[in-house]
Amino acid sequence: MPFLALLRHGQSQWNLENRFTGWVDVDLTEQGERQARRSGELLAASGVAFDKLFTSVQTRAVRTGSLATEAAKLAWLPVERDWHLNERHYGALTGLNKAETAAKHGEEQVLVWRRSYDVPPPPLEAGGEFDLAKDRRYAGVNVPGTESLKLTLERVLPYWRDAIAPDLKVGKNLIIAAHGNSLRAIVKHLFAVPDADIVHVEIPTGNPLLIELDANLKPISVRYLDETRAEKLPALPA
Amino acid sequence: MPFLALLRHGQSQWNLENRFTGWVDVDLTEQGERQARRSGELLAASGVAFDKLFTSVQTRAVRTGSLATEAAKLAWLPVERDWHLNERHYGALTGLNKAETAAKHGEEQVLVWRRSYDVPPPPLEAGGEFDLAKDRRYAGVNVPGTESLKLTLERVLPYWRDAIAPDLKVGKNLIIAAHGNSLRAIVKHLFAVPDADIVHVEIPTGNPLLIELDANLKPISVRYLDETRAEKLPALPA
Repeated sequence: MPFLALLRHGQSQWNLENRFTGWVDVDLTEQGERQARRSGELLAASGVAFDKLFTSVQTRAVRTGSLATEAAKLAWLPVERDWHLNERHYGALTGLNKAETAAKHGEEQVLVWRRSYDVPPPPLEAGGEFDLAKDRRYAGVNVPGTESLKLTLERVLPYWRDAIAPDLKVGKNLIIAAHGNSLRAIVKHLFAVPDADIVHVEIPTGNPLLIELDANLKPISVRYLDETRAEKLPALPA
Repeated sequence: MPFLALLRHGQSQWNLENRFTGWVDVDLTEQGERQARRSGELLAASGVAFDKLFTSVQTRAVRTGSLATEAAKLAWLPVERDWHLNERHYGALTGLNKAETAAKHGEEQVLVWRRSYDVPPPPLEAGGEFDLAKDRRYAGVNVPGTESLKLTLERVLPYWRDAIAPDLKVGKNLIIAAHGNSLRAIVKHLFAVPDADIVHVEIPTGNPLLIELDANLKPISVRYLDETRAEKLPALPA
């Protein structure tokens, strides 16, 4: 039965500043680097023989994958990077501090954008500081202007189906180094989490979620690799 | 016209100890890490828009590629790792200090193994400390017991032809992070260096060799990115 390890990137500079990041390519802090290495030690200690690494194309997830596999003595793993695993695009909220956003739009509205399943924030202004239209890594990609969690799922899951699931079905053990919301999309799909509940599922940083799957890719066991931390696990599907 | 950057990994712990390394998976020293980051700054300053990174499956080249692309703000580049880009396998010399080897086999014999084109050292003892038969990254690979430079070429060039050349032919600009002898193989092929001369071609560390190719992948310009260092360039083919 294949194993899948979900690895959320560690602290980034904007996590520290409490700013909406989304697709902006912010790097890890030193603490984020330590969290990534610690995740790698946990992956090594799990005893699972991993075969391949998937990452988004955002530096904080790429580097989390690199630092973790290096710490696990798995620097040689084949790696596939794809924008479909990017963080949720926060639209016009991108770059704003969360307190500033609440002052500007009202706390209630901000909670709707952050905590609803299908309400996207207003779109990012084209041509502004955070517009990625000219970023070479997105050549040929229809970069979203904003995303709800639902819209994030709708671009993560086709990639899951076409690129990730086939590797699991042939028995490969995979690591996915990505982001809070792209990993939520995968957890929602695998554990059949209802729309209303998924926003409350919080993938922790620095603590890989190890999922064992059956031949139909239904989870049969799930645990966090650092079991001393009181993280809430998704419930196995019936 | 496509560009190809050849990037030799920086100092490893065994470079420092002057030991034959070959396929043993020795990591970079801190100086090696600095050389890799410096190479990345040079790649960024070159102005070439790189599209993809190739590496061997040895940690020192993998990490050189990661550190260089991160320093160049290219962490997102697609990457392909393959054992065909590994260092020359030094057979029974693996792990020996170069002075010890000379004391054991005679200085003249060691020079033959190091400097001849087609004389491999005796094969590595099977089952010994440096036998890679059980290393998971080489599952399904017929790991060599020893290699001359000629044998190294004979496994690098099919990979060049099948995996690297097609990307260049469609105009992709590539970075190859690899080793002294696997990069020599590529230089010998591209610049039509005679057998007797190739052992004297020394690819420096921390100074990427940037080659511009025509549509037939014939070099039309070549330079080291740090031009302040007096490195000897391969001559353009006629």
